[in-house]
Amino acid sequence: MKISSRSQTAPFIAMDVLAEAQAIEARGGNVIHMEVGEPAYGAPKAAREALAAALGRGDALGYTSGLGLAALRQGIAALYQRRYGLEIDPERVVVTSGSSGGFMLSFLALFDPGERVAIADPGYPCYRNILGTLGLEPVRIEAELVSRYQPTPALLDEVEGPLHGLLVASPANPTGTMLDKAALGALATYCQDRGVALISDEIYHGLTYDTPAVSALELTDQAFVINSFSKYYAMTGWRIGWLVVPDRFVRTLQNLAQNLFICPSHASQIAALAALSDEAEEEVARHLDEYAYNRAAVMSALPKLGFTDISPADGAFYAYAGVSRLTNDSRDFCARLLTEGGVAATPGLDFDPARGHTTMRFSFAQPRDKIAEGITRLTRFIESGG
Amino acid sequence: MKISSRSQTAPFIAMDVLAEAQAIEARGGNVIHMEVGEPAYGAPKAAREALAAALGRGDALGYTSGLGLAALRQGIAALYQRRYGLEIDPERVVVTSGSSGGFMLSFLALFDPGERVAIADPGYPCYRNILGTLGLEPVRIEAELVSRYQPTPALLDEVEGPLHGLLVASPANPTGTMLDKAALGALATYCQDRGVALISDEIYHGLTYDTPAVSALELTDQAFVINSFSKYYAMTGWRIGWLVVPDRFVRTLQNLAQNLFICPSHASQIAALAALSDEAEEEVARHLDEYAYNRAAVMSALPKLGFTDISPADGAFYAYAGVSRLTNDSRDFCARLLTEGGVAATPGLDFDPARGHTTMRFSFAQPRDKIAEGITRLTRFIESGG
Repeated sequence: MKISSRSQTAPFIAMDVLAEAQAIEARGGNVIHMEVGEPAYGAPKAAREALAAALGRGDALGYTSGLGLAALRQGIAALYQRRYGLEIDPERVVVTSGSSGGFMLSFLALFDPGERVAIADPGYPCYRNILGTLGLEPVRIEAELVSRYQPTPALLDEVEGPLHGLLVASPANPTGTMLDKAALGALATYCQDRGVALISDEIYHGLTYDTPAVSALELTDQAFVINSFSKYYAMTGWRIGWLVVPDRFVRTLQNLAQNLFICPSHASQIAALAALSDEAEEEVARHLDEYAYNRAAVMSALPKLGFTDISPADGAFYAYAGVSRLTNDSRDFCARLLTEGGVAATPGLDFDPARGHTTMRFSFAQPRDKIAEGITRLTRFIESGG
Repeated sequence: MKISSRSQTAPFIAMDVLAEAQAIEARGGNVIHMEVGEPAYGAPKAAREALAAALGRGDALGYTSGLGLAALRQGIAALYQRRYGLEIDPERVVVTSGSSGGFMLSFLALFDPGERVAIADPGYPCYRNILGTLGLEPVRIEAELVSRYQPTPALLDEVEGPLHGLLVASPANPTGTMLDKAALGALATYCQDRGVALISDEIYHGLTYDTPAVSALELTDQAFVINSFSKYYAMTGWRIGWLVVPDRFVRTLQNLAQNLFICPSHASQIAALAALSDEAEEEVARHLDEYAYNRAAVMSALPKLGFTDISPADGAFYAYAGVSRLTNDSRDFCARLLTEGGVAATPGLDFDPARGHTTMRFSFAQPRDKIAEGITRLTRFIESGG
């Protein structure tokens, strides 16, 4: 048996750093986790209680519809009313196994092998890795700080060859930057005019600090919107997310989902439904205060330590910064920062293979005392010669 | 935006029948469920209690390793010792999002686009649908009742063109038939001699009535083995399964899993670990008595009602039978049986597109009183003219 060529994808480095950090902890070491985009909090109490009640009753928790529980699809549709004032038909909502499941379903439903999808660099590494695994060509748009590391119609015009899709993320990972209504609108129009499929990754919606994020659904019905309970609702390990798609794609997605996944986890769907309750919404809204505190601390510390070109974190819980004054090898720097400095962070190579050897991402989703300790350790590491 | 060609896969008809049955129930109707392979029982009590305890403690249930929790991988390895007397290195165990996740990972890790994988017809429809979606060519082996609807080296020799993989299932869905050690060994040798990748779907192991099922791992280390907690442990909706793979594939699968899924549901992993406890094992072993009772009742009733060519259900909880004396259109027959007869069953077209218009699958995983009522209704439907 041979190993296939298409499975020779790059690792998701952040997860490798996490594994290394956990190995150090297993040996009795102490690590501050600024490597993965994982809230320190568990699922909201109401979510945990709703599932515990179902378990106590002995509910069978069998297969659900491939599109998800009707009540959850309705609850997600209602979230669009609450957050954006939008009427979304629950029939257009597809519950997925995390945003990961949403990417897989979207890419398969929209693109045939060999087709080309534009994504901004720096960007979430799994975008290009999933695309490549599915026989699609990620077209990297080298985005610049001056345009908030986001794609623009002008940058898309520079693409040589055909373009079949554009994937945008606002707030973005690793930069935290957002597209405002005008910027997202210009991209939506660009796509619509040229028959390019628009996919909008909105997983960090709700996690914003000055102005709320704009959903692609405020601008067009002709987009695939991807979201998840992982970040805002602090339910990473539950693997539960959703898509909102144009009507005419629903049956295709149902077929794909039935065949590829059968259904998302029933237990996670029950917890997710309760995460949309008023009580849970109040709980998760409080996490934002903690992230805002950490954001101010990290954004204040990084320039003093020699980091440059720091991306404005309009949302999410990441700081993305240049480290060229300290190293030309961010992977080595991160490895030493972990083993010698006790701080796990992610080298920019995960997000930007071409330029990431001089950038880094710090996640500030842990509690404020942990992040403060992380900054102290980072300072000590750099001041002692890095 | 266009809908991609590759997403135009066939529906998983059993799930469509389930949806139609649930719609009838929502309107106040009563349906006996013999359409989906879903145990009537929920997860074992110990599994439910373990997760409820974690929820009560407020455990964060964040991301796990892409390969799964170490304790669960060890627990699954120990299952091979218990069931087959095999030493399996826990490092070779990859926890997946159901067997569905295992298929996706296996097909991507083993095959490049255009490669050809042999599967027996009748067989689980998602095999060919997932293969097709991933750009692979399912090569249908028209299996016959005389060889227990299983592939044989002789049938494989008849394949024209190259063959890159063989997927076997024992016990099989929809037929329940098994490959004994000699038959599976002959296929393993056939594959090894020709560099054909062997994938063994062992999801129904444990659910056997006369002799235990043989694992491919008893015969070779050079196979991908797929299993799940869905059937034997009655945890369908939890979407938790596993792979056992050759050592040298582990890092590839870790990369793929991190990128495509991040990790399986943490909550489901906790429940699954407890499902391997002695207490849970005793509980699920009792389900088998119920299935055995149902099996005898169904196998006795079907020939009297005019069904022919009934497959020997060595394992699993399905009866697969010819319905040509009653109809030439099994899909129409099933639709009328549901709406007029109150019994949901699956037309053979799901499992054998070429010959399934005259076959049907009955699942007998529900409690004995339900299955008895299903037989009564089926009898009434047929005796009143079908």
